[in-house]
Amino acid sequence: MNSSRIPRILSAMKERNLTQMIVSDPAAIFYLTGKWIHPGERMLALYLNISGDHKLIINRLFPQEGDCGAELVWYDDTEDAVEILSRYTEKDRPLGIDKTWPSGFLLRLQELNGASSYCNSSSIVDDVRRIKDAEEQQRMRDASLANDRVMERLIPLTGKGYSEKELDRIVRELYAASGHSDVSFPPITAYGKSGADPHHSTDSTCGKRGDSVVLDIGGILNHYCSDMTRTVFLGEVSDKAREVYEIVREAQQRGIDAARPGARMCDVDNACRSYITEKGYGDYFTHRTGHSIGIEDHESGDVSSVNQNIIQPGQVFSIEPGIYLPEDGIGVRIEDLVLITENGCEVLNHYPKDLIVVPFES
Amino acid sequence: MNSSRIPRILSAMKERNLTQMIVSDPAAIFYLTGKWIHPGERMLALYLNISGDHKLIINRLFPQEGDCGAELVWYDDTEDAVEILSRYTEKDRPLGIDKTWPSGFLLRLQELNGASSYCNSSSIVDDVRRIKDAEEQQRMRDASLANDRVMERLIPLTGKGYSEKELDRIVRELYAASGHSDVSFPPITAYGKSGADPHHSTDSTCGKRGDSVVLDIGGILNHYCSDMTRTVFLGEVSDKAREVYEIVREAQQRGIDAARPGARMCDVDNACRSYITEKGYGDYFTHRTGHSIGIEDHESGDVSSVNQNIIQPGQVFSIEPGIYLPEDGIGVRIEDLVLITENGCEVLNHYPKDLIVVPFES
Repeated sequence: MNSSRIPRILSAMKERNLTQMIVSDPAAIFYLTGKWIHPGERMLALYLNISGDHKLIINRLFPQEGDCGAELVWYDDTEDAVEILSRYTEKDRPLGIDKTWPSGFLLRLQELNGASSYCNSSSIVDDVRRIKDAEEQQRMRDASLANDRVMERLIPLTGKGYSEKELDRIVRELYAASGHSDVSFPPITAYGKSGADPHHSTDSTCGKRGDSVVLDIGGILNHYCSDMTRTVFLGEVSDKAREVYEIVREAQQRGIDAARPGARMCDVDNACRSYITEKGYGDYFTHRTGHSIGIEDHESGDVSSVNQNIIQPGQVFSIEPGIYLPEDGIGVRIEDLVLITENGCEVLNHYPKDLIVVPFES
Repeated sequence: MNSSRIPRILSAMKERNLTQMIVSDPAAIFYLTGKWIHPGERMLALYLNISGDHKLIINRLFPQEGDCGAELVWYDDTEDAVEILSRYTEKDRPLGIDKTWPSGFLLRLQELNGASSYCNSSSIVDDVRRIKDAEEQQRMRDASLANDRVMERLIPLTGKGYSEKELDRIVRELYAASGHSDVSFPPITAYGKSGADPHHSTDSTCGKRGDSVVLDIGGILNHYCSDMTRTVFLGEVSDKAREVYEIVREAQQRGIDAARPGARMCDVDNACRSYITEKGYGDYFTHRTGHSIGIEDHESGDVSSVNQNIIQPGQVFSIEPGIYLPEDGIGVRIEDLVLITENGCEVLNHYPKDLIVVPFES
């Protein structure tokens, strides 16, 4: 575990006049304690107190070794886990609650009068997690480098006649074979009109000559997620598809250029969106420009028109504009992850973005 | 959708003097409305009122067609979904809350004074879901029949030298090829000492002559889950392994014989456990005897020593005793699903339970 993380949380709690809070999200608990625990339906709660007296209330089914920065408090399935938690809370003070904590536990804690009031305190952890420390930055670099290599191996295979489902399986095997514990989200391997449909589910479709192929893929390496998208073409590319590709590529570059400390998240969105709109395709860029990423593929803080938060060094997020023309069967998206530096950003993906026409074997 | 299900919930609410409740679990919403919606972090809430005026509060990202028994109330990402929900709640009355509803929503609803008090009402839906109606019973039969066929195809492959991970992939392909939407849980395909370790993760181990092979597998067919276990032996079987196998087989049969209306769930557990204990292996049967199953692989109501609930017709649960001897590298588990009838139970799995020695090609 990284011993600087809990102190950063305690500082943020003090700023908000909160003396105690519960962290229950397994990813947040991993971030703070170094322990990845999947409790399923069972209660797992990291109780933090600005006094420094932290407790991790945990079922005996999940034995742990080594220090985690909090005292372990064990319970078993015959015990009332929330009642045990309530022995440690300050009853006369407000208590912060993780927004994903199942209500069954909160209702029981309220019944036990575990605190004077309850507030949603997830943003405290989210705000700290958003700024990656040096160790995390290196892991994000490593994960994206590995992702570049998976993309490099995947792209030539798109012309070999595989169905989307077969490509999906191949992608998963490429990640497994290169040391990833899992994909960071279900891969998108969508040919032609499927790539133009944001609600498309991977199916048995095979590519046809001239199809665009949207490849949106990522893996989990050493607990950190990668996520990138390239769009390639099979055998040939129409003038319309080429035009759209070059617009998306330029829009994505403008997003990268706008990603720097002091700008707002919405400025990055606007840099991409205004260019696509200017070129006449604004109605066909139907999603936000990106999302924060780290231990989880989607973390708090999106790159959208409504997020006015100021960008800070250490943030990592995706920049992934797209244009989707269902009637033409054309879908194009290009995505890189960026790490915000003191002066601008470091693009974590290095696979080229020149338009690629893959040799097509029908 | 099945129009008898919501009325069964309303009756149960009246019995508990509750006029209104929120159902948020996607499986429960599917059960009641016929709509499977994966809202991710977005709020999805089925508000039920004994007046019959039900609302499904749902994000516009999840368009729905057809009747679902509740009026659809749409919101988008710029709106406060909980505030919209609060327009429909009776402020001066208690409100039932699903135990898995994320606390962030409940805290906001409490801030808005959405009800006079809040209680955990999940057991109302759980109790109704536990008794499968005729349509569900048929789906459970169909799913288990399909599972028998997957098992039949899988067993000979255990002797072909595949690693556990390769068998895992093969199992998933067998389910996909026979109309299943997914596996109902990660398959267990565990050789020898791996099968004796309840915490084992599927790895690259290959089987050796004499190994037991625990095959605990299930798929999702037409939205309903199957789940069965068979244990086979590679090439030969030791006297000890044969003894253990026959004890587990007899214990499982005793569990089946005890599964009838009027008995308690713990009686089924005891029927298995007491026989295994009598034979001297009680310390090596380290888990509960079974679990309820339906839309989800694990549903409320387990077959354990502490569940004193009376068994009722229409319940479906697993009976899966096992004996695990890590030092001998022997793990044996046998599992069938049973459907409780008026007089006893119908065993939904038909694959034989005689001891099988698979021809082994090393």
